[in-house]
Amino acid sequence: MTINPTRLQQHFEAMSEIGKLGETGTCRPTMTPIEKQAFELASLWMQEAGMTTRIDNFGNLIGRLEGTNPELPVLMTGSHLDSQPYGGRFDGVAGVLCAIEAVTTLSEQGIKPQRTIEVVSFADEEGWRFNKGLFGSRGILGKLEEGELDRTDKEGITRRQALLDFGCDPHKFHESQYAPGSIHCFLELHIEQGPVLDLANKPIGVVSGISGPLWWTVKLKGMAGHAGSVPMHMRKDALVGAAEIIVALHKIATQVIYAPTVGTVGTLNVFPASRNIIPEEVTFTVDLRDIDLERRNRYEAQLRGMIEVICTKHHLTYQITEDWNSEPRYCADWLKDIIHHQCIKLHLDAPELMSGPFHDAMALSYATDYVMIFVRCKDGISHNPLEYASYEDLALGAEVLYGTVLDLLKQ
Amino acid sequence: MTINPTRLQQHFEAMSEIGKLGETGTCRPTMTPIEKQAFELASLWMQEAGMTTRIDNFGNLIGRLEGTNPELPVLMTGSHLDSQPYGGRFDGVAGVLCAIEAVTTLSEQGIKPQRTIEVVSFADEEGWRFNKGLFGSRGILGKLEEGELDRTDKEGITRRQALLDFGCDPHKFHESQYAPGSIHCFLELHIEQGPVLDLANKPIGVVSGISGPLWWTVKLKGMAGHAGSVPMHMRKDALVGAAEIIVALHKIATQVIYAPTVGTVGTLNVFPASRNIIPEEVTFTVDLRDIDLERRNRYEAQLRGMIEVICTKHHLTYQITEDWNSEPRYCADWLKDIIHHQCIKLHLDAPELMSGPFHDAMALSYATDYVMIFVRCKDGISHNPLEYASYEDLALGAEVLYGTVLDLLKQ
Repeated sequence: MTINPTRLQQHFEAMSEIGKLGETGTCRPTMTPIEKQAFELASLWMQEAGMTTRIDNFGNLIGRLEGTNPELPVLMTGSHLDSQPYGGRFDGVAGVLCAIEAVTTLSEQGIKPQRTIEVVSFADEEGWRFNKGLFGSRGILGKLEEGELDRTDKEGITRRQALLDFGCDPHKFHESQYAPGSIHCFLELHIEQGPVLDLANKPIGVVSGISGPLWWTVKLKGMAGHAGSVPMHMRKDALVGAAEIIVALHKIATQVIYAPTVGTVGTLNVFPASRNIIPEEVTFTVDLRDIDLERRNRYEAQLRGMIEVICTKHHLTYQITEDWNSEPRYCADWLKDIIHHQCIKLHLDAPELMSGPFHDAMALSYATDYVMIFVRCKDGISHNPLEYASYEDLALGAEVLYGTVLDLLKQ
Repeated sequence: MTINPTRLQQHFEAMSEIGKLGETGTCRPTMTPIEKQAFELASLWMQEAGMTTRIDNFGNLIGRLEGTNPELPVLMTGSHLDSQPYGGRFDGVAGVLCAIEAVTTLSEQGIKPQRTIEVVSFADEEGWRFNKGLFGSRGILGKLEEGELDRTDKEGITRRQALLDFGCDPHKFHESQYAPGSIHCFLELHIEQGPVLDLANKPIGVVSGISGPLWWTVKLKGMAGHAGSVPMHMRKDALVGAAEIIVALHKIATQVIYAPTVGTVGTLNVFPASRNIIPEEVTFTVDLRDIDLERRNRYEAQLRGMIEVICTKHHLTYQITEDWNSEPRYCADWLKDIIHHQCIKLHLDAPELMSGPFHDAMALSYATDYVMIFVRCKDGISHNPLEYASYEDLALGAEVLYGTVLDLLKQ
């Protein structure tokens, strides 16, 4: 192994002290003094690797190893150092620290690349503080939406104010944007946040793409009535309708066994919510994802058909609101090939798998080719202090990333 | 028609002014100055009918038409004047005002019964103020439970204090109790609170019994995970399990078409309730009722079996807590026959139907024979300001009640 596993572990251990929550948790909100502290520590490591560092106007930390040919589009890699409010030590952090380790190793090996390399910790990947994420990665590509700076956090602080407090200048966003074609490709290492690698007993996976979700809010309306006095055949029970729809979604999403389709109802609210009153109104969310957009569209149509049938049967009216609809974003084959090649060199049998969750790579995918390396995550637990990836696996991930960077520099 | 429909309507209209809520609603909580005002108005009408009136130590209003033979057990009829917090004008009120109308008519007809008749407005039928109902009707039969006087309302006032404030003396409960055998029978007229009569286009129904509910709280536990990254076949989704159980309950309760079985899930809560997290824990209530206890027990067993099967399939653990389990209480055949006879005399085709909801009659059923007369209730809506019964139907109900009382006095 060329990278330094001991140093990498020390970096993880040091970073986990910043915003530490209990024994193994992290709370490191975006654009706060806690994240600034994390940036300062990471900057130090970046500088030790020979990089110059800056925080741009979106709140991204960028370490830059200047290439000998500044005309070449940059090789960008990274992830994020902000965390969930009740999060773990590896989500996002892994992608930043392994990238720093890869560049540090490059420098140690005396390699002076032609192409400039940038290691980025993107601002507000998690999105919970202002209820909209991927801020920094969308920002550098000019993809912010109208009104984003007016969003407020729980304390009523606007995104604009938080940026100013962080030392950023929203009037100078244009200075921090990347011109089309200026990024050669983007690499992101991340813990899987799912159980596939753990169950398959594989430390490393190659991501085939990010399957953006289709997000709905579904509202069913029936008729309340006394649970003791309205005969079954006269009811308009919105919860019975919702239950049949949940069962239908489960059937639809599992019709092809082991397919990467996932369908979830994560929230459900009943009105009036009294044990002896028939539910009049039920509102629930639907999350449907697939790496195969054509199949996802077909399943969406099946689900719409089932909702119509079920609501007709139970005399319910319904309303479907589409809250989000993102298409799957596929990783570039040529980049996947490089990673597979690196894995083979390390005798790793690295399966390909889709990513259900978003990542900064999703935003980057609209500007450049990208690929992701997944590191095994114990029991698939993430967004939780119990989140765990072993330092052995993370070192393997860093080694694959290092080899990939080396290979790309030859091109 | 012997009773006076105009007077009856005037009584309803006057009573609906006390605790009036909006145009057609009522909020008349038990043991409050508002209920006292209702009692005063009802007392006035009782006295006009020749009755003496008293409020007993449980907070029941009792009008008494003294019979010529005080040795005979009393003929008791009535219901309640307290209402739901967001209730209508007829629930409970109908049974008190129609009973007063029946006795008033008796007196107008110059009838001097041998048997004493009592018209009762029972205290706290609704049960929401102290979260336990049928207080007055259980009280007179010595069926209060340990600690009931220590229950508090939202303002922290105990039932004991509320009784004292209402002028009752909890130390003298024994003076207000009825000795075994002292009640000849109990008659209660009530709006149906369900849609059966309305849909059958029948103004009056004869109640076959009150099917007490089986009440459960069911808790399912699975495993949270990212909705985008945990493959379907690896999930332990508590909401999918709950949905299958709700569907199963619906199937169980509808397996015999037009049977009076009802099964309802009225509340359901999801944890952690995030649109992109697989539900880890779901808690919901089950309400199962049937006039046929043997069938209800059979269905309960079927449901338990299905919960076991469904939870095993989805790798969930479950816990069933029984919150309430009351047996059906049947109306006396000889009393139903009298009512049927009265209905035939009035050319009313009165179907028999079960009562899903509780009534004071349920408490009385443990001390004496009872029967109930149901009056059609528009669209089955109750416990709501929209609750409606026509004055024509209520007059018919009062006439049936009057005829029934007359018939009973002959015995």
